[in-house]
Amino acid sequence: MSMSRTRERLVVVGGDAAGMAAASQARRMKGPDELEIIAFERGHFSSYSACGIPYWVGGDVADRDQLIARSPEEHRERGIDLRMRTEVTALDVAAGRVRARDLESGAEAWTSYDKLVIATGARPIRPPLPGIDAPGVHGVQTLDDGQALIDTLARTSGRRAVVVGAGYIGVEMAEALVNRGYEVTVVNRGKEPMSTLDPDMGRLVHEAMEGLGITMVNDAEVTKILTGEDGLVRAVATEDAEYPADVVVLGIGVRPETTLAQAAGLPLGDHDGLLTDQAMRVRGYENIWAGGDCVEVLDLVSGRERHIALGTHANKHGQVIGANAGGGYATFPGVVGTAVSKVCDLEIARTGLREKDARRAGLQYEKVTIESTSRSGYYPGAAPMTVKMLAERRTGRLLSVQIVGREGAGKRVDIAAVALTAGMTVEQLTALDLGYAPPFSPVWDPVQVAARKAVGAVFGRR
Amino acid sequence: MSMSRTRERLVVVGGDAAGMAAASQARRMKGPDELEIIAFERGHFSSYSACGIPYWVGGDVADRDQLIARSPEEHRERGIDLRMRTEVTALDVAAGRVRARDLESGAEAWTSYDKLVIATGARPIRPPLPGIDAPGVHGVQTLDDGQALIDTLARTSGRRAVVVGAGYIGVEMAEALVNRGYEVTVVNRGKEPMSTLDPDMGRLVHEAMEGLGITMVNDAEVTKILTGEDGLVRAVATEDAEYPADVVVLGIGVRPETTLAQAAGLPLGDHDGLLTDQAMRVRGYENIWAGGDCVEVLDLVSGRERHIALGTHANKHGQVIGANAGGGYATFPGVVGTAVSKVCDLEIARTGLREKDARRAGLQYEKVTIESTSRSGYYPGAAPMTVKMLAERRTGRLLSVQIVGREGAGKRVDIAAVALTAGMTVEQLTALDLGYAPPFSPVWDPVQVAARKAVGAVFGRR
Repeated sequence: MSMSRTRERLVVVGGDAAGMAAASQARRMKGPDELEIIAFERGHFSSYSACGIPYWVGGDVADRDQLIARSPEEHRERGIDLRMRTEVTALDVAAGRVRARDLESGAEAWTSYDKLVIATGARPIRPPLPGIDAPGVHGVQTLDDGQALIDTLARTSGRRAVVVGAGYIGVEMAEALVNRGYEVTVVNRGKEPMSTLDPDMGRLVHEAMEGLGITMVNDAEVTKILTGEDGLVRAVATEDAEYPADVVVLGIGVRPETTLAQAAGLPLGDHDGLLTDQAMRVRGYENIWAGGDCVEVLDLVSGRERHIALGTHANKHGQVIGANAGGGYATFPGVVGTAVSKVCDLEIARTGLREKDARRAGLQYEKVTIESTSRSGYYPGAAPMTVKMLAERRTGRLLSVQIVGREGAGKRVDIAAVALTAGMTVEQLTALDLGYAPPFSPVWDPVQVAARKAVGAVFGRR
Repeated sequence: MSMSRTRERLVVVGGDAAGMAAASQARRMKGPDELEIIAFERGHFSSYSACGIPYWVGGDVADRDQLIARSPEEHRERGIDLRMRTEVTALDVAAGRVRARDLESGAEAWTSYDKLVIATGARPIRPPLPGIDAPGVHGVQTLDDGQALIDTLARTSGRRAVVVGAGYIGVEMAEALVNRGYEVTVVNRGKEPMSTLDPDMGRLVHEAMEGLGITMVNDAEVTKILTGEDGLVRAVATEDAEYPADVVVLGIGVRPETTLAQAAGLPLGDHDGLLTDQAMRVRGYENIWAGGDCVEVLDLVSGRERHIALGTHANKHGQVIGANAGGGYATFPGVVGTAVSKVCDLEIARTGLREKDARRAGLQYEKVTIESTSRSGYYPGAAPMTVKMLAERRTGRLLSVQIVGREGAGKRVDIAAVALTAGMTVEQLTALDLGYAPPFSPVWDPVQVAARKAVGAVFGRR
């Protein structure tokens, strides 16, 4: 069926960050005469910032359209045949084709490809609890989800909100609901919020959230969602208690959306994400690439594959895929596990291995925790921060940094992220030439204060 | 004369950041039974933050004492014999002794040492202009200088200030005087302010300063300081014009204070700073160390020695010296030339080589400049910033980053500072796993946006 085509065809499955970044980069590499690009997206929106949804819900971002980086029309103007509301229902990698259904008309057809990009994203974890589908219970994965939640908030007269889950999405949604004037309770399975941090650092987040007026319930498993006689949600139940709720937000996390890939026999990892090489090519397939929330990525510190759903990775994957699919060359070597978030004025950041990750990787380590400030202590606005650092025993290699503080704390994690990527030791960290002036940093940057202490922990007195 | 001593004696010349950090670290390494520590300081203050003076003058820091990290009494309580108002007038390295004069009594005596630390700091450049010693003309190098300026500001009824020099001190003093309600004119020899930036980036600082109501006069050499009949300063004259002034601040820069070292025959570099090895030991001398504003440091990017007067380096030098003089081991490998500053809400940062530095080092480069924002474009408070990046031709090795922007711009230079230290290429920069969330960064950090463009400039289309 492709005999009549004289130019190559690139098919992209999924029209959000990774897929459309790939399509755009491939288009930059090759014009429409050389490369036809068809992209399928089942939703109503393309190229949007899912990470921005909490801020839209919270009112910091006024308009949904601000979250859309590039509309379908803009993609089409750039020569990408983006077909919205069209769901890919099967991959036939042997024949080199995908089957897609127009969700409006129901019409279904096969489209052949020379090159394929899988960017099917992630799906939210939605435990099969009684009441989970009740009106007033919301996920916040897509713009459609965000709109539905905003509609509920506008309709609901009550002011009590329960957030299930205390990871990034959970704490960001807690902030959003506080900003909208809700009494917020966060119900969390773990010992402390932010399980991407060690529990001792999560404890600081816990305390700060309570200081913001958020009720934090840890070690609690939701057993069901209770509804009123009107069928609307009225409470969240755990084994021990019931938390009244006029609205419930689920922020439990996501899994790679790899149903199609699995059915097609493509290689999946331990986290059900697609496995790729460093050029983001699906392992074992010359002409199939995958990126974004549906793939696993190499953790450069532990040497293991992980699943991390994050817009910045999706964009980078897309750019790498587009370069390679367009006949160029680029790679995505892996991640070090950097993340930053905030709850109101509390900033939370991490990079590298938690204690349990290090143990799992067979690494022995020393750990230190220090208190410092964002600016010189005497400079107005100097805000406290806590920095925890792990360094490998004997070698002193940096393994991780976790930071909890106020303004100026979060992005300091980048110092450690670059140092981790370069394989630096904590001794090398102490000598780094970082930006210093009283409005920006103490004379020793907080990350270096931690590094000094880590040097002592690993090597003893200098 | 040292026959009767059973313990070693460490003598420190200069009681500010480098000297007292050295003394303190040596004391941590060895107790008073093993090591006697005598430190001489000619001024009234020890261990203070000279970098904080502009903020004290500007009123952000209320009290002089806030700038003092550790008082002479606190040092003495830690077993350091710190002798204030005592000036070392000669070094006799052959005999291992220093001559010091008590500035109060005039008494002078020799003190022998087993180990010596030279931390004599820098002296401000003060051109021999007519009127430069007139009342109302101030340097801002020491706390005494700062106090004298504050006294003048309190006494003066006029509201016109002229700052001579447009480097870090000049622009920070311009901010301080704006904050105190002065009409500020900055008279600058160079083509643009901030000659530590390339002129195209300095131009952005120029424009922003004018936006803040500061009058910026470039390409102007001061020829004399004019005084009134009362003997007080009344104007600053250049070849072309006169700028009325009720107060004049000199921020022209500093030179290493190495008069004593030179007289003693110690090795000085092209910038008149002491030359040391990586353990901060004066080259060729087993038992003499030097650090802080009186030494030259190795620029790791150009491979050449530079003079950089900066508190963060002085503290690090002191810590390294103290470890080594105390029998331990530490090194200061060098700098990459990182600096950050601000004028009101304008943030200015740089690391690595300017274009002219690169040319002088024999390096060929590509340069790119991009505009981005501190946060995701849709997030409130997203502030514009301009990032300039240099990358070596053919290899793509990062050579420098310069940033001019608003809140959130300055400390981003740390990403580049660590990458420079690690010898990363701009291609590697594009793959870095940096902290991303809409309140903290666009999905591509501005430094990575520049890196992507630099990759294109060096290697062409990916």
